[in-house]
Amino acid sequence: MIPFQKFQGTGNDFIIFNSSDVEQYNLNVLAQNVCNRHFGIGADGMIISKQSDIADIKMDFFNADGSIATMCGNGIRCFAKFVYENEIIKKNKFNVETLAGIMKVEVFEKNNLVDLVRVNLGKPLLSSKEIPKASNLAEFINEEMIIEDERLKISSIFIGTIHTVLFVKEFDYNYFEKIGKYIENHKIFPYKTNVNFCKRIDKNNIEVLTWEKGVGFTLACGTGAAACFVINRLINDSDNKIQVKVNSGSLYFEEVDGDILMSGPAKLICKGNYNY
Amino acid sequence: MIPFQKFQGTGNDFIIFNSSDVEQYNLNVLAQNVCNRHFGIGADGMIISKQSDIADIKMDFFNADGSIATMCGNGIRCFAKFVYENEIIKKNKFNVETLAGIMKVEVFEKNNLVDLVRVNLGKPLLSSKEIPKASNLAEFINEEMIIEDERLKISSIFIGTIHTVLFVKEFDYNYFEKIGKYIENHKIFPYKTNVNFCKRIDKNNIEVLTWEKGVGFTLACGTGAAACFVINRLINDSDNKIQVKVNSGSLYFEEVDGDILMSGPAKLICKGNYNY
Repeated sequence: MIPFQKFQGTGNDFIIFNSSDVEQYNLNVLAQNVCNRHFGIGADGMIISKQSDIADIKMDFFNADGSIATMCGNGIRCFAKFVYENEIIKKNKFNVETLAGIMKVEVFEKNNLVDLVRVNLGKPLLSSKEIPKASNLAEFINEEMIIEDERLKISSIFIGTIHTVLFVKEFDYNYFEKIGKYIENHKIFPYKTNVNFCKRIDKNNIEVLTWEKGVGFTLACGTGAAACFVINRLINDSDNKIQVKVNSGSLYFEEVDGDILMSGPAKLICKGNYNY
Repeated sequence: MIPFQKFQGTGNDFIIFNSSDVEQYNLNVLAQNVCNRHFGIGADGMIISKQSDIADIKMDFFNADGSIATMCGNGIRCFAKFVYENEIIKKNKFNVETLAGIMKVEVFEKNNLVDLVRVNLGKPLLSSKEIPKASNLAEFINEEMIIEDERLKISSIFIGTIHTVLFVKEFDYNYFEKIGKYIENHKIFPYKTNVNFCKRIDKNNIEVLTWEKGVGFTLACGTGAAACFVINRLINDSDNKIQVKVNSGSLYFEEVDGDILMSGPAKLICKGNYNY
């Protein structure tokens, strides 16, 4: 039996193990088994907590299919809550080594439990040179694209992955699916793009629905929400601190010295022993 | 935190609680929450273990949507393992009160753990009077039906629910989906029917794929496998003890005094505490 804890952050769920409890196993195979929703505990991903030589702690992240992922915005919030509440880390600001680099996180407590976690997502990349995009423009912000006889304005940046943002008045899943597939596969995105439909509510609030390339609509995409925050500040009248409503909760964003800080919830679902 | 255990039987997974640990909660709401695959532990159903006045123990079964189910063949095997290994029941043959009546179960151990559970599913109903079926025939066994210019032989009985069985030479999902939908919705079944595609391997082995009414193909349907066992014995050369291969494992059947006994696996996935 292997000690485990299961967490979720805006509906993305993860099984977390301590490295010392699983070192004898093939972790790719363990991830496939433990994440299986009928034969295992069931989760979107598996996270291993490890000692780091270059940061306070190391997070190894595995997708449910056993493959390795570099980083996951919802996953790192759950991981931060896990290491802090289990007293593996005893300070509320710390650095986490990931395959995407060292991430700065901060935990906020309520009734002695971590309620919210803030993650520094770094600087968004706006230059077309740094985004695989078949366009001659230096940046691709608020550009017109004609989709099925409609003139739509879209913006594309890189934050975690390639994100395209469209502002909309109302949410319409059928329409968004058609537009999402069209933009995802448009020839100007040789590596495809996620498509984020963003509804502006006021200066401090937006609502986001993300069409994930190769997947479809997601419950919550942290970096998609971040892309909407960035584009909304660039082209609309928006405050620096905003709340982003996603399908399964809320995320909070602000920019400090060009870095994008994302705050969001992390919840413990259960803890116990896995019969592997 | 509520103590829980999670089990699976041929890929159907269940969260089991002791009644005394959850008596203060609305169980329909608890089932919806704990079975949710992103915000809860995740399962096909929730089972509550309770004292019984008329049997050795009582099993209350809830679907993932919070509704009550009368019985579940894969669920009762998991439940039997749970009550036996936790020493709630200390004999290996016992009776379980369910909303579908009192079920007789027997557990078989290997290395001091329950490895296989046998459940008495009772007698199948063959008479057309007892099956909602718009047919003048006394029984509906090996009757010809013309589906898309093809003459197919089908048999229908009631065991747990209405099951129709077709024997096939090869498994073809696309073809089965078309045939399954057609038979499920045929006018001779005013309450619809499950459709089981059964491949005969030899006297002791069949392979079954079940098209579940309103659902589609299932990982494993215990009563569908039972219906195939019954029909196979009636119209083919078959032994009384057979193994039925389903999508996610194997079930074993035999008939004793007209009762259908189903044996199959039950596995502990994890145990711990649920943060409700």
